[in-house]
Amino acid sequence: MSSSTTRVRMSPAERRKQLLEIGVRLLGTRSLDDLSIELLADEAGISRGLLYHYFGNKQAFHVAVVRKAVEDVYEITAPPGSGDPLTQLQASLGAYLDYVVDNHAGYLSLVRAASGGNEELRQIHADAQRALSDRLFDKARALDESTIIDTPATRLLARAWAALVEDAVLAWVEDPAGLSREELLARLAGALVPLVS
Amino acid sequence: MSSSTTRVRMSPAERRKQLLEIGVRLLGTRSLDDLSIELLADEAGISRGLLYHYFGNKQAFHVAVVRKAVEDVYEITAPPGSGDPLTQLQASLGAYLDYVVDNHAGYLSLVRAASGGNEELRQIHADAQRALSDRLFDKARALDESTIIDTPATRLLARAWAALVEDAVLAWVEDPAGLSREELLARLAGALVPLVS
Repeated sequence: MSSSTTRVRMSPAERRKQLLEIGVRLLGTRSLDDLSIELLADEAGISRGLLYHYFGNKQAFHVAVVRKAVEDVYEITAPPGSGDPLTQLQASLGAYLDYVVDNHAGYLSLVRAASGGNEELRQIHADAQRALSDRLFDKARALDESTIIDTPATRLLARAWAALVEDAVLAWVEDPAGLSREELLARLAGALVPLVS
Repeated sequence: MSSSTTRVRMSPAERRKQLLEIGVRLLGTRSLDDLSIELLADEAGISRGLLYHYFGNKQAFHVAVVRKAVEDVYEITAPPGSGDPLTQLQASLGAYLDYVVDNHAGYLSLVRAASGGNEELRQIHADAQRALSDRLFDKARALDESTIIDTPATRLLARAWAALVEDAVLAWVEDPAGLSREELLARLAGALVPLVS
């Protein structure tokens, strides 16, 4: 099936989804500033006008791409669902770390944009961090009520722990400082316990 | 001694220092965006022209104020120098927390500006976080080599822990979530141990 055939057969929703997937892939190796509608048009082989039709403007396009990337991270980092809580946590953390390694430029630019003046991206980033850390408590309820106590206080601390994880992983990707992937994961998981138990 | 007498007697360096102190105080209750040269001129009772003479422009003025604020934080959070490491750490953390409580608006705007596009403020914030977390290792060497091991890896993790502290304290100031000041400090100090020992 040639790409032009694909293009004709896809519904607008499918087409938009495909364009977002290309956008997420492109974001992996460049910053948001460098992720232009023009680049996506070239990569997808369609006109800029059609892309503006799908996304409106560059900011809306970035928001859509980042939302999709964040959904991907959430799916990729789902705990395996079996094993003790610490093993599951390390598996989830490992998937997150691998994602950041593979998509470093885009991830870093998201974090910077999110903390800077871009209110929409800040909100998406905050919601994602909250969703990821709140999921710790879902697994906890199912698996081990003594390791992770679910209170507003521990949720606050778990979200702060997510900031630690993000900071450590971004630093580690730039310079591992002699830490192996496994040791980093074990240390990060270990720091959660005194915060939420 | 009236303020006009004070003004006449001060050297340019003393005058600049006094203006920075006013700037830091003003920053405590407002964001960097709201900290204008005009406001400082009104507050200090001197002309805008003279302030531009001292600081150049708004960005340079902000940088000077933030540098001074960061020096203040570093001094205020110096560990007491006696007591076991965990007690000293909690004292230092407590001083940091109280500073953020007292200067919330300005501190929050610094963190946002630092992570956003403002490269100079980002660097000052990063240097400050590094200085604060590196100081953990100075005390450690003097006091307890078994609690805090000094390696590039533990320094990376201690800096990430500083991000956890900042995130948790900023969240706690907005909504304590049932956590007392002392419990928050104990949890934050407790999270450092598995990272650096």
